[in-house]
Amino acid sequence: MPKGWPAILTLGWILLAVAASEAGIALFSLAAEDGLASLFAANAAVTAGVGGACILTTAGRPFELRFRDATILTVLAWFAVPVFIGLPLMTGPTHLSIADAYFESVSGLTTTGATVLSGLDSLPPSILLWRSLSQWIGGMGIIGLAIVILPFLKIGGMQLFRLEFSDRSDKALPRVRSIVTAVAEIYIGLTVACILAYWLLGMSLFDAVNHAFTTLPTGGFSTHDASFGYFHNPALEWAGTVFMALSGMPFLAYLRFLQRGRLRDRLDPQIKAFLMTVAVAAAIFSLWLGLSHGIGFGQAITESAFNIVSIVTTTGYASLDYLTWGTFAAAWFFILTFVGGCTGSTAGGLKIFRFQIASRVVVRHVGRSIHPHVVLPLRYGGRLVSDDQVGSIAVFVFLYFALVAILSAMLAILGLDPETALSAAATAIGNVGPGVGTIIGPAGNFATLPDAAKLLLAIGMVLGRLEILSVLLLLIPSFYR
Amino acid sequence: MPKGWPAILTLGWILLAVAASEAGIALFSLAAEDGLASLFAANAAVTAGVGGACILTTAGRPFELRFRDATILTVLAWFAVPVFIGLPLMTGPTHLSIADAYFESVSGLTTTGATVLSGLDSLPPSILLWRSLSQWIGGMGIIGLAIVILPFLKIGGMQLFRLEFSDRSDKALPRVRSIVTAVAEIYIGLTVACILAYWLLGMSLFDAVNHAFTTLPTGGFSTHDASFGYFHNPALEWAGTVFMALSGMPFLAYLRFLQRGRLRDRLDPQIKAFLMTVAVAAAIFSLWLGLSHGIGFGQAITESAFNIVSIVTTTGYASLDYLTWGTFAAAWFFILTFVGGCTGSTAGGLKIFRFQIASRVVVRHVGRSIHPHVVLPLRYGGRLVSDDQVGSIAVFVFLYFALVAILSAMLAILGLDPETALSAAATAIGNVGPGVGTIIGPAGNFATLPDAAKLLLAIGMVLGRLEILSVLLLLIPSFYR
Repeated sequence: MPKGWPAILTLGWILLAVAASEAGIALFSLAAEDGLASLFAANAAVTAGVGGACILTTAGRPFELRFRDATILTVLAWFAVPVFIGLPLMTGPTHLSIADAYFESVSGLTTTGATVLSGLDSLPPSILLWRSLSQWIGGMGIIGLAIVILPFLKIGGMQLFRLEFSDRSDKALPRVRSIVTAVAEIYIGLTVACILAYWLLGMSLFDAVNHAFTTLPTGGFSTHDASFGYFHNPALEWAGTVFMALSGMPFLAYLRFLQRGRLRDRLDPQIKAFLMTVAVAAAIFSLWLGLSHGIGFGQAITESAFNIVSIVTTTGYASLDYLTWGTFAAAWFFILTFVGGCTGSTAGGLKIFRFQIASRVVVRHVGRSIHPHVVLPLRYGGRLVSDDQVGSIAVFVFLYFALVAILSAMLAILGLDPETALSAAATAIGNVGPGVGTIIGPAGNFATLPDAAKLLLAIGMVLGRLEILSVLLLLIPSFYR
Repeated sequence: MPKGWPAILTLGWILLAVAASEAGIALFSLAAEDGLASLFAANAAVTAGVGGACILTTAGRPFELRFRDATILTVLAWFAVPVFIGLPLMTGPTHLSIADAYFESVSGLTTTGATVLSGLDSLPPSILLWRSLSQWIGGMGIIGLAIVILPFLKIGGMQLFRLEFSDRSDKALPRVRSIVTAVAEIYIGLTVACILAYWLLGMSLFDAVNHAFTTLPTGGFSTHDASFGYFHNPALEWAGTVFMALSGMPFLAYLRFLQRGRLRDRLDPQIKAFLMTVAVAAAIFSLWLGLSHGIGFGQAITESAFNIVSIVTTTGYASLDYLTWGTFAAAWFFILTFVGGCTGSTAGGLKIFRFQIASRVVVRHVGRSIHPHVVLPLRYGGRLVSDDQVGSIAVFVFLYFALVAILSAMLAILGLDPETALSAAATAIGNVGPGVGTIIGPAGNFATLPDAAKLLLAIGMVLGRLEILSVLLLLIPSFYR
C-alpha cells in the first residue's frame, strides 16, 4: 500500500460528495427543463465511479487521518476535485477546452471567481447553478481548512489561531468535529439569510440562490456578464456589501457570538481592523470620486463600498467597470487585491491579521532603534506573539510576493503585457477574481489568455488558497520520512 | 541653541565642499569655453554663503557628532544639498523649473539616474560634468553611510555589517575614519581605472570621465540621450558591465583584498550571491532573447549582461531600448528593479543579502514545519543571525513594499497609468533610474510627469537611499528625547 493512502481514501469520499452534488444538479435540471439532466447524471456517475475506486482500493484498513495525510489530502483534493467539477463544462453546452474547464472550476472551488465564460445571461440554469455551487462547496472547504489544518501546519502565523481546547469558554464544544459542524451550520444559515435578502430586495429566486452561493464563499461568480451591475439596484448592492463583509470575517466569531451573546472577542482583533480598513479605503475612494469626478455623495459611497468590499474580501463582484474612473482607481483596486479579509473566513489575500502584526512589529522595531534597551512584548488579541510566529508571518509575506513575481514573469513570457501579467498573478494568488486593465478587468474576462497562462493561474489560485507553504511542504523529500 | 545643532554645523561644512566642487566646475568651464564659468562661480558663492552661515551660527561650541545628530545630519543633508546642486540647472541654460531641478539633483545625489533632461548631447560640457559629479559625490556619501551610520541604526539588518574592531584582521586599521579614508581612496582609484578603460576603448576623455563619474556610484547619468547605446561598442559595454558590477560589490571587500591579498571573505557572502544572481538573470534573458527573437549568442549575452547588470546594480544605463523586446523583457526588468546590489556599495534596491537571509529563513521555516523539534541556527557568513536581526530585515522589506504601494497610489492620483506609477515608484525607491513603459522607460524620461509627481519621486529616492527607517525615525517624537 503506497504512503498517503488515507488521503486517497478521503478523496474518494469527497468525490462521492461531489457526485451527489452533480446528481442534485441533474434533478434541478429536470425541474428547470434545460435538458442537461442526463449530462449531469452521467458526470455524477463518472465522478462517483472514480470516487468509489479510490475508496475500494484503499478501504478495509484501520483508518486514521494523521497530520501528514491531512496535508497530502488537502493539496490533492484542491488540485484533483476541479477536474471533476470541470467535466460538465467540457461535455456540456459550454464546450470548454480542458484548460478553460480546469481554470473555471479551479476558480470556482478556490472561490477566486475569475471566469473564461461570457454570455452568462443565456447559459442553461443548471450550468450556472453548478458554477455557483462549486464556489459554495469550496467556501465550506476553506473555512474547515483555516480552522483545522492550517493552524496545525504552523504556516504563515496561522498557529495564532489554533483552537484552545483548554479555554474555558470553549468547554461547550470540546471537539474539532463539533466546532466544524457548528460553523457549517452558521455558513448554511447565513446563506439562507443572504438568499432571502437578495430575493426580497428584487432578485429572482434563481439569481438570489446563485448570488448567495457565491457571496458566502467570497467567490464572485455571477449569473450575468454585468455581475451585480445587472440589477441597477442600490439596495441590493448594500445587501451584497453587508453579506460580503460578513463572509470576510471569522466564522468562529459568529459561533462565539451565538454561544455568549457578544461579537467582541479579546482573542480575535481581526474584525475591528477589517472593518476599519474597508471603511477607510471606501471613504478615501468616495472622497476622490466626489472631488475628481463630481459624483454625488450617495452614489459615490454606494459604489465605493460595494466594489471595495468586493475586492478586499476577495469576492470579485463588480457593480460597474470601476477602471473607467481612471488611473487612481486602477492603482487603488490593484493595491487592495493584496489585502484580503480575516483568516477563518472564506476570504483570500494576505489577510488583515498579518498586516496588523506586521505594523506592530514595525512600530516595535522603530521604538527599539531609538531606545535599544526597552523591552516591548508583542501582543495580538491578548496573546503574546513569539519571534517564531513573527518569522512565520514574514516568511509567508515574502513567499507571497515572490510567487506573484515568479507568476508574473511566467505570464509575461507567454505574452501578457506587464500590467495584465502582474494583476492576473495578484488576483489569482489572492483568490480575488478580476484584475486591472482592459483584458482581465471587471468588464473583461480571462478567455483570451493563452492556455498555458490559464493553467499557471489555476496553479496560482490553489497555491494562494492553501497559503503556499502547505503545497511547498509536499515538494520536500523529508516531509515523507 | 536648538537641538541638533551639530548636524547644522556639519551640513555647513558639506555645503562648503559642494561650493568648492562648483568652483571647480567654474574653472572647468573656463577651460571648456562654454561660457558658464560665472554661473557656477555665482552658485558656488551662494552655496558657500549658506554653508558659511550654518557654520557661523553654530560654531564655537565643543563639537561632538553623536548618534542622534548623525542621523539628523544624514536626512537633512540628503534633502537639502540637492537644492544647491540644482541651482545651476535652474539658473543656467537648461532653465529647469524648481520641481525639475530638485528632481534632477536628488536623482543625481542619490545616484538614481532618472532624468528630466533631453538633448543631453548638445548641453554645455560644464552642465554635464556637474550632473555627473553630483552622482560621484553622492556615491561617496552612500558608501560612508553604509559603513558608518546605517549599521549603527540597526535598520534593515544592517547591524550584520557593523565593523568589528576586535576582529584581529582589522587591527591594521583600527578606526572608522581611517577605514572611510581607505575606502574613499579605493573609490577614487576605481574611478581612475574606469576613466582609463572607457578612454582606451573608444570614448572621448570627456565622455570617459563623465561615465566613470556615474558608473562608480551606480548612478547612470549619461552625456548622451541614447546612454551607452550612443557608442555602439561591445567592448565598451563589457567594460561598463565590469565596472558596474565592481561598483555593486562591497567596497570593504576591496580593502580586505588589498590588505590580505584575497577577495574571499567568510564574513561577507554577498559577492558570490550577487555574481550568481546577475549571471543567472542574464543567462535566462539571453536564452529567451535567442529563442524568441533569434538574436545571435554573442549579441544576446552582451546586451543581456550590460542591461541586467545595469538594473541589478541600480545604475540605470541602457545600451538600447530593451522594452521593445516585448512583455517578458518589461516584466523581467521590472522585477530586477527590486533586487539591488550588495550593501556597502553604491547600489540601491532591497539588496542581495536580504534575499539571502530571507531565503534561509524560508528554508529553515519549512524544515521546522516538518520537524518542529529540530533546532536550526541561522548563519550568515560565519555569523549567527539573531531573530532580532531577521525581524529587522522583515520590517525593512515590509516597509519597502508598503512605500512602493503608497507612492504608486499617490502617483496614480496624479494621473499616471498604473504601469508607469508602479514602475516609477519602484525605480525611484530602488535608486535605479529608468522604469518600464513608454513614458519613463529606457528610451523615455521623466520630463512629462506632473511637478507633484516629480517631488514625490524625489522624496521616494531619498527614502530609498537612506533605507527608509532612518527618515522615519526623525518623525517620531521620542527620537528627540
